Order: sequence, then structure tokens, then C-alpha cells
Amino acid sequence: MQKVAYLGLPGSYSHIAGKNYFSGKAEFISCETFEDIFNAIDKGEATLGVLPLENSLSGSIYQSYDLLMDKSLKIIGEVVLKIRHCLYAKGSGKIKRCFSHPEVFKQCRNYFKKNPHIEQIFVGDTSRAALMLSKSGTNNDSAIGAISLGDLYGVKLIERDIQDNPNNYTRFVIVGKKMNKTGTKVSLVFSIEHKPGSLFKTLEPYSRLGLNLMKIESRPLFGKPWEYIFCVDFVLNGQKDNLDTMLSEMKEHVNFITVLGLYEKGRIYDDSG
Amino acid sequence: MQKVAYLGLPGSYSHIAGKNYFSGKAEFISCETFEDIFNAIDKGEATLGVLPLENSLSGSIYQSYDLLMDKSLKIIGEVVLKIRHCLYAKGSGKIKRCFSHPEVFKQCRNYFKKNPHIEQIFVGDTSRAALMLSKSGTNNDSAIGAISLGDLYGVKLIERDIQDNPNNYTRFVIVGKKMNKTGTKVSLVFSIEHKPGSLFKTLEPYSRLGLNLMKIESRPLFGKPWEYIFCVDFVLNGQKDNLDTMLSEMKEHVNFITVLGLYEKGRIYDDSG
Repeated sequence: MQKVAYLGLPGSYSHIAGKNYFSGKAEFISCETFEDIFNAIDKGEATLGVLPLENSLSGSIYQSYDLLMDKSLKIIGEVVLKIRHCLYAKGSGKIKRCFSHPEVFKQCRNYFKKNPHIEQIFVGDTSRAALMLSKSGTNNDSAIGAISLGDLYGVKLIERDIQDNPNNYTRFVIVGKKMNKTGTKVSLVFSIEHKPGSLFKTLEPYSRLGLNLMKIESRPLFGKPWEYIFCVDFVLNGQKDNLDTMLSEMKEHVNFITVLGLYEKGRIYDDSG
Repeated sequence: MQKVAYLGLPGSYSHIAGKNYFSGKAEFISCETFEDIFNAIDKGEATLGVLPLENSLSGSIYQSYDLLMDKSLKIIGEVVLKIRHCLYAKGSGKIKRCFSHPEVFKQCRNYFKKNPHIEQIFVGDTSRAALMLSKSGTNNDSAIGAISLGDLYGVKLIERDIQDNPNNYTRFVIVGKKMNKTGTKVSLVFSIEHKPGSLFKTLEPYSRLGLNLMKIESRPLFGKPWEYIFCVDFVLNGQKDNLDTMLSEMKEHVNFITVLGLYEKGRIYDDSG
């Protein structure tokens, strides 16, 4: 059985994404930080990791990209999870306080506009919020997190889908020590000289080879105005030959280029409980 | 004197960015949320607003982009602020707790690794953290925020620059009701059909007209896999004619296109106190 490192405690969104990807057939190891996931794999405590890479409402997670660039792990898989925030309570008292991550509160603004008397208590992640509610919450406390938290922490589901925007998805990648030999999706990072037309020249092979760009993002380096980093995802059109051809053509225009991984495009999971 | 709406309380990074941009010559109006800034201008309580748009460590702030797309305000200026986190205390007791925004704690991980006994208390923003320290903090409490907070809230500077990464910059834009008639930098948002080569065709005029792309970012719309939104910044090469030519050429390839603003490239400010 694979040992898979993930962020947070049982029931965190990372944990749910991992369970979906591995169809539950893995041993999951809780990590406190992104770096801990990489360390767990380095030390052999885990063979793979689940890493959030971007969210449809808050964008790319640079910390994950930085770790993928700095450390030697590669993306070997992908899974997208629809994020559905649920409200839990300890008892049946009037809710006066709520525990969750600040980003979650931002995504549930309408609920708190309708319930302005509820005080928001910021916690590091949603699984910890449920644990806090379960362990030290009162009859007037609540927490927000995924649908699975109710059973895991013995807290009572009060309301489902309290997020404002239904288009809330997080894209997770599965990371491991070895690059896959096959796959249809490629993630890479490169830097180019910052002069007119240089990005255009670098992208030209994609167009000519008929590769479909799924993501392109320049990364601000305000301190270094003449250097730019780009994160790109694309889908190969047929053979892996395309990738080699494209990389060798891109190398003529870039300062550096790193393939973050070769993998199969991931499914979208929607755990509505 | 212009009335300028900003996020947070006096001494927030948005406030400092605004003070630098207007050289202190404006009346600043504190707002609690991004939306409140837009509402303040709508209602005429402010004429302009300061809006954070991206950070070098955490990326684009989609909420700001969404508001710029949904509401009618335009970008009329830009200012970049180097973010320097300082530690403040109430008295001279041993620090046992620290108040700040969760993102700030993430950016000061090394400090907390060296001081693992300090408990992190999450607060909505750095100016509120300083206020909390000042109003209800004990001799063992501390807060993290900008260099100006010490004087504003009567708290004692303990240590400067406790952030891990010195390359920490936030780019703010100044928003107002009317589009500028002149400017050298342009921000726009467009969507294209998701098929191979479509982005390339859309970008071709940039290359031909010698316009320098400063930013390009595709936005994930996981629920709508065949539609893509792009956020682009570029610098005009000479006349405004370039912009009109380019927009009319782009219109042939896009589903929609919105100019978010025309403005002068902003200065980078570094308040080291």
C-alpha cells in the first residue's frame, strides 16, 4: 500500500482529494506544512504526496511551485476537487462563534452577512477547526469545512454549501520521486529574457505542433524587472516525441526550463456527501 | 483633496501604498473589505480607491480582478510596495503570543521555527493585529505588521524584517470612475475559445507591434473547461494608436475583451522606517 503525505488532519480537503485519487487504497500521513510533505517523502516516511497547486477563486499556489522547483519531486498525477463548505455545530444552542480558515470565511461572506452576530475565529485549516469544535467547543460554537468532517469529529451538520460561489475548485497534484515515462499532460516552468516578442517566440512551437495550452502564468519578480518566470501546462497531441521536439525548440529562447511532471489529466470529484 | 478608500485600518500595507502614491496628499478612508472600497466610490464617499492586485509570493488577487470586471471602476494608477514585516510588543515581557494575518505567519516561518514557544493568533489584517495588541494585549503579547504601526498604535518595535523571503512585493492599483485618456501601461482581460493555437493568434499583434507583455495569466475555470479567461498587462510602444490597433485585431479572436485601465507604470516604494 502506498504511503501518501497530505496537508492537514483527516478530513482536510487535501485528504479528500488524495482519497479520491487513490480510491481510498493508500495509507495517509498527515503533515502540518507544504514542506513537511516534501520532507516526509525525502525521509522515506511516504512515497507520494498530495499538493494543492491552484484554486479557481484564489489562483496558483506559488509555495507549491517553489517547492517543486527547489526540491527534486515530480508531478505524477492530478486530481481536482469541488470545494463545498459545510457548517457544523457541537450542540443545538444558538451559534455565536465559528472556527475556520480565513480564506473559508471570505468564501462564505453571504452567510455571515445574514448572520452578523456570529464571531469568526481564525484557525489554520478546516480539519483543525472541526477538531477544535469537537474538543473544546461549547454549545454555541461552530466550524466550517468539508462534508466528511461530521463523522470524523462527531460534530453535527447544520448547513451544506454555504459558500457564495459554486465555482470553487482546487487542483491538487500527486508528487513522487520519479518522473513518469508516459502521460498526456505536461507542466513546466521557464524563464525568458524580458524583451518584446520573446514570449511569442517561445510559444510558437506549441501552436505549430498543435499542443493545447491549459495554463500560462507569468510570475511577478518585482525586484528583478528584467527576468520573468512562466508556469505552463499543456496537453500533448499524440506521441511523447512532441514533448522532446518542443523542449528542444523552446531551449533556444529560454534562460532555463524545468519539466515539473508528465501525467494524466485528472478527474474532477464532487463529494456532496 | 482626493478622498481615497483603502483596505484595513491606518498603517495597513494598503494605507502605506496609498500614502506613497499620493505623497500623503489625500484624505484616506478605511474600508473593511474589497467590496467596501468599490461601494465607497459608488456612493461618492471616496473618489478613488487603493486595491491590492498581486503579490510576488502569493500571486494575483482574483477578488480584485473580479470586482474590476463586475463593477465599472477603472485602473488609473499603480504603486508597488516592498513588504517588510516588523515584530512589535506591548511591554518587555517574554513573548508568548503573536497576533497577525495567517499569510504573514507563513511568510515569517523561520522566525517561528527559532521561537517555537510563541503561539500564533490569527487576525484579519496587520493593522487590526497592532490595534488588538495595543488595546487588549498583555506584557507577553506581540503583533506583526508594517514599520509604521509602532507610532500609530503606541507599540514597541522589537525586530525588523522578520520575513523569510526579501523578494516580497505587493502591487496595488489606484481605481476611479473614469478611464484615463493617456498612459503607457494597459491592463486587460479577455476570453478565447479553448482550441490549439487560439492564444497564439490572439498574442500575435503584441509581437508585431513591439508591445512588451508585463503579465499574462490564464485563469482556471474548472467548471467550464472550454472557456478561458486571460489577464494581460503590457506596455505601449509609443502612441495610443497602438492600443486601438491591437484591440481591434484582438477582437477577431476573442469572445470578450475588457480594458481594465490605462495608466503610468508605478514606482516601487520601500519604507524601511
